[in-house]
Amino acid sequence: MLKVAVIMGSKSDLETVKPAIDALQRFGIQHSVRVISAHRTPDLAAQFARNAKADGYGVLICAAGKAAHLAGVMAAYTTLPVIGLPIKSSLMDGLDSLLSIVQMPTGVPVATVAVNGSENAAILAAQILALSEPTLADKLDAHKKALADAIVNTEL
Amino acid sequence: MLKVAVIMGSKSDLETVKPAIDALQRFGIQHSVRVISAHRTPDLAAQFARNAKADGYGVLICAAGKAAHLAGVMAAYTTLPVIGLPIKSSLMDGLDSLLSIVQMPTGVPVATVAVNGSENAAILAAQILALSEPTLADKLDAHKKALADAIVNTEL
Amino acid sequence: MLKVAVIMGSKSDLETVKPAIDALQRFGIQHSVRVISAHRTPDLAAQFARNAKADGYGVLICAAGKAAHLAGVMAAYTTLPVIGLPIKSSLMDGLDSLLSIVQMPTGVPVATVAVNGSENAAILAAQILALSEPTLADKLDAHKKALADAIVNTEL
Amino acid sequence: MLKVAVIMGSKSDLETVKPAIDALQRFGIQHSVRVISAHRTPDLAAQFARNAKADGYGVLICAAGKAAHLAGVMAAYTTLPVIGLPIKSSLMDGLDSLLSIVQMPTGVPVATVAVNGSENAAILAAQILALSEPTLADKLDAHKKALADAIVNTEL
Amino acid sequence: MLKVAVIMGSKSDLETVKPAIDALQRFGIQHSVRVISAHRTPDLAAQFARNAKADGYGVLICAAGKAAHLAGVMAAYTTLPVIGLPIKSSLMDGLDSLLSIVQMPTGVPVATVAVNGSENAAILAAQILALSEPTLADKLDAHKKALADAIVNTEL
Amino acid sequence: MLKVAVIMGSKSDLETVKPAIDALQRFGIQHSVRVISAHRTPDLAAQFARNAKADGYGVLICAAGKAAHLAGVMAAYTTLPVIGLPIKSSLMDGLDSLLSIVQMPTGVPVATVAVNGSENAAILAAQILALSEPTLADKLDAHKKALADAIVNTEL
Amino acid sequence: MLKVAVIMGSKSDLETVKPAIDALQRFGIQHSVRVISAHRTPDLAAQFARNAKADGYGVLICAAGKAAHLAGVMAAYTTLPVIGLPIKSSLMDGLDSLLSIVQMPTGVPVATVAVNGSENAAILAAQILALSEPTLADKLDAHKKALADAIVNTEL
Amino acid sequence: MLKVAVIMGSKSDLETVKPAIDALQRFGIQHSVRVISAHRTPDLAAQFARNAKADGYGVLICAAGKAAHLAGVMAAYTTLPVIGLPIKSSLMDGLDSLLSIVQMPTGVPVATVAVNGSENAAILAAQILALSEPTLADKLDAHKKALADAIVNTEL
Repeated sequence: MLKVAVIMGSKSDLETVKPAIDALQRFGIQHSVRVISAHRTPDLAAQFARNAKADGYGVLICAAGKAAHLAGVMAAYTTLPVIGLPIKSSLMDGLDSLLSIVQMPTGVPVATVAVNGSENAAILAAQILALSEPTLADKLDAHKKALADAIVNTEL
Repeated sequence: MLKVAVIMGSKSDLETVKPAIDALQRFGIQHSVRVISAHRTPDLAAQFARNAKADGYGVLICAAGKAAHLAGVMAAYTTLPVIGLPIKSSLMDGLDSLLSIVQMPTGVPVATVAVNGSENAAILAAQILALSEPTLADKLDAHKKALADAIVNTEL
Repeated sequence: MLKVAVIMGSKSDLETVKPAIDALQRFGIQHSVRVISAHRTPDLAAQFARNAKADGYGVLICAAGKAAHLAGVMAAYTTLPVIGLPIKSSLMDGLDSLLSIVQMPTGVPVATVAVNGSENAAILAAQILALSEPTLADKLDAHKKALADAIVNTEL
Repeated sequence: MLKVAVIMGSKSDLETVKPAIDALQRFGIQHSVRVISAHRTPDLAAQFARNAKADGYGVLICAAGKAAHLAGVMAAYTTLPVIGLPIKSSLMDGLDSLLSIVQMPTGVPVATVAVNGSENAAILAAQILALSEPTLADKLDAHKKALADAIVNTEL
Repeated sequence: MLKVAVIMGSKSDLETVKPAIDALQRFGIQHSVRVISAHRTPDLAAQFARNAKADGYGVLICAAGKAAHLAGVMAAYTTLPVIGLPIKSSLMDGLDSLLSIVQMPTGVPVATVAVNGSENAAILAAQILALSEPTLADKLDAHKKALADAIVNTEL
Repeated sequence: MLKVAVIMGSKSDLETVKPAIDALQRFGIQHSVRVISAHRTPDLAAQFARNAKADGYGVLICAAGKAAHLAGVMAAYTTLPVIGLPIKSSLMDGLDSLLSIVQMPTGVPVATVAVNGSENAAILAAQILALSEPTLADKLDAHKKALADAIVNTEL
Repeated sequence: MLKVAVIMGSKSDLETVKPAIDALQRFGIQHSVRVISAHRTPDLAAQFARNAKADGYGVLICAAGKAAHLAGVMAAYTTLPVIGLPIKSSLMDGLDSLLSIVQMPTGVPVATVAVNGSENAAILAAQILALSEPTLADKLDAHKKALADAIVNTEL
Repeated sequence: MLKVAVIMGSKSDLETVKPAIDALQRFGIQHSVRVISAHRTPDLAAQFARNAKADGYGVLICAAGKAAHLAGVMAAYTTLPVIGLPIKSSLMDGLDSLLSIVQMPTGVPVATVAVNGSENAAILAAQILALSEPTLADKLDAHKKALADAIVNTEL
């Protein structure tokens, strides 16, 4: 199965990104976790994105805050689907991150999830990979059912 | 190859959604175009999403404006990747559509593109399908190269 | 008298929703409290809303946060008045919830109250039911008078 | 059947409010249409709201823009359900009207609909009155069905 | 000298409003402090504003949060200058209060100061009264000089 | 009677500011109209504000757009009441002008009116001057009555 | 004298960027104008920024709209001062462009000017170069004086 | 080498501004730190800005919050590059400071950095001075490399 890369712009994002990593783990999806900054290590970002397909990746999850350029920069160098995960920093309540990621120009999309929506970034990656992995699709169906069951069995 | 469904909440969205349809056409991706309203035809929405996988769809593009629930409602019924396309209505400059689509709760992601970013919705769908369709991947690479060439050859 | 349903998208909303439940209790309005998620249990939501009238409900109070689709989804399946209660999550200061609930398309209204305005959701439900329940109308008048008296008697 | 009052803060709102009046007409709901300004005719507003119940009204629809106080002021004087209809003025894209109407303090709710959502204000009023008017409830069901049929029969 | 009324919509605003009261005290301006709610005690608000001029008031400072109608309602009943003081509540970071107060319709102005800008509300009141009170004008000049001196003498 | 200065940051604001000038005219308030830019003619701004009181002014109306510093700069040099009139430029829908004017720091208030609320700026100036001018107060009362009469006599 | 590069993300920005080019021309600053897209021609962007200093540039003006990454990407590859010029697209009234450009992470600044503030971008570039070019400094002083004179001589 | 002035509107900004001072220190740039308020000490602000060039300054960093006029006022009196540093106050999440600083009118630019982006203000000042100081340029290159190395060597 194709791998998923989880890339964050700063080590300080790790705690917020953690649920994405855990979810990939639970779905049995092979993944790597890296800190790559679009602004501080642009060459590394370019190199990673350019080689991502050849390196066996199928989806890139890019988490960043403020003027969050990481997802857009990665998407500039690859035609793999790039998932943008806006991180809420201490300012602007995440609106800056969200707009910086989602409002991409025509030609270079980024699949954006909710601010701090780390687990959803992983589930979306799984949904994408599941199109050619029936086992993973089954896991997603089971996960969906478990979500519903948890609601149904909620006691107030 | 899996099909793409382009679903809009109202016929009035058709003009805005058109570039998505054209792009799918150019990429040679089989697709259907439907008007389904999450609020006016909820049963139809549920039925379409529930059967989408069995009906041969791989990705659903859902376009809606204002309190845009279409993408979220479709995502509630399927584990296929759902692409949310926020449509700018005459009010709030699209912020209402964007937040209503992107801020999904944990467990049910929607891959959101820019407000009125119709062509990008189609390209993202193509990127997803291309993971298991080398020919489509080649077309995306060619498209990416063409975008760059157009910039390089711009005369001012 | 018709009943009021208090539905929240997640058990974590319970503390915020509590003042609505308490107010219904004080007004002597029969009510039920449920966790139903538009995204995780869409069938349950559809079923509840479809049967709400036959089950003796007169008003549905729907509380949800972020891309808050619960009220809109319920309103899609019933012609009973649906009161939308936007919950402030940790992001966007409640603007996402508010816009997702209030900006409904033509044909399917949701009666929206303030972000975290739980008690007001209950009072609005009481005002609606009071149109055919003179006793309840008297209670609302008394409540209004008590509010005024509390202000008048405030000591600084 | 109880009447509905459609009140607007300025005659210039009439064109935007018109769909509410038309919808009440179609539903066969007796209604009056008035210009009353919370800021320019506060006594008139107080008097109208205070007498509304005795005058046979069941629901007040209050349309206003900018610092839209009309709905809140009317709600201060009556326990009838008040529907707030935010009007988009030439500034702030309607956000000022929306927040001025929906963010009411505890004790005095206003049932807010979308910015310029005039028809929905009327439908909500109808839903409220229909709780004790089976004929009106039937009309609402028929209207809901017609909305769905229009979508289903859309040709692209 | 004309008096200043400091009116707040809720006793819970007192702590935020305190610097206004202290400043009036320091300027030697006679003032009264009251809790009057536009929504819970509309008659009291109307009565106070209507009689304010006859009661010897020259300026009304009206503090309120959320859908802050207090200043606008008072201004509806008097031609005395009304100063609006937006209070930041726990939601929307004060934007709702600010827009509800400042965006008044033509004909009925409210002199709005910054969110939580209590001391400035008092200084503005003093500036207004000082136009016909040379002694107060002198105090304002001295205050302005003291502000400057404090900056000049700041040690870092 | 004290004079009112109407100052605008750019001649292009004149059309928007015109209703303020007309209203001062109607109230019989002596006034001057000037273009002074806080950023392009800071010395002129300082000089005007410093001399305003000695020159017989009682109130300064300062109209500006975008990063609207004019009102704040004038208020820095005088203890006369300064009315800030935010002008909507072609960007940000006036939010930049409004926040730049209203959010003044402690010690230096600006009495802010609505975005493009030119006539209200003049009425506020009249209300301030009327405290020591009974004739002007009578005109304001008559104006208030005329506003009410216009509403009462509105035909739909 | 060092040169200024004016780079825009799309040829469609040319009309908005034009005042920057004209101003550089008027100040006699040697400049080049290029279309380079951070997302469509990332290699070109990297190459241009990396060589900019060696190519004789002193300042880069980068104009882009929506999720405007151009300035940030250029700044990632050079230590020359980068001026970010947010372009207002048809959506979000320029807020997306502004936040995407100004909210840069620690270590990689972008000197941001107003939305569509093209002439100011050029003036800022001139101010930077003027630090080591007395003739240019004189031109800026003359320009500042001309701005003031234009205001002073305005006839209303 | 030309000096940098770090000016803040209030001593309370010092903690936020500290990283700018530290960075200037690390780059070996001579600098002074002052509290000057555009609103409380306008003469001091004018005097400082007017003399800045003659006093040996090359860049002014101006930090302020809320209706942050400091940078714009300084820029009105000098043609030196002015860097605006928006400070987040307890309200509006810094949006008021940002818009008040960045949205300057044509003719008088302010080079704006991120809200609370103190270190970036200093780096931008260094980049500007480095155009004529090769040693400083080398330090910036080394700093850029160190940023990259820190990312590359991050261990998760």
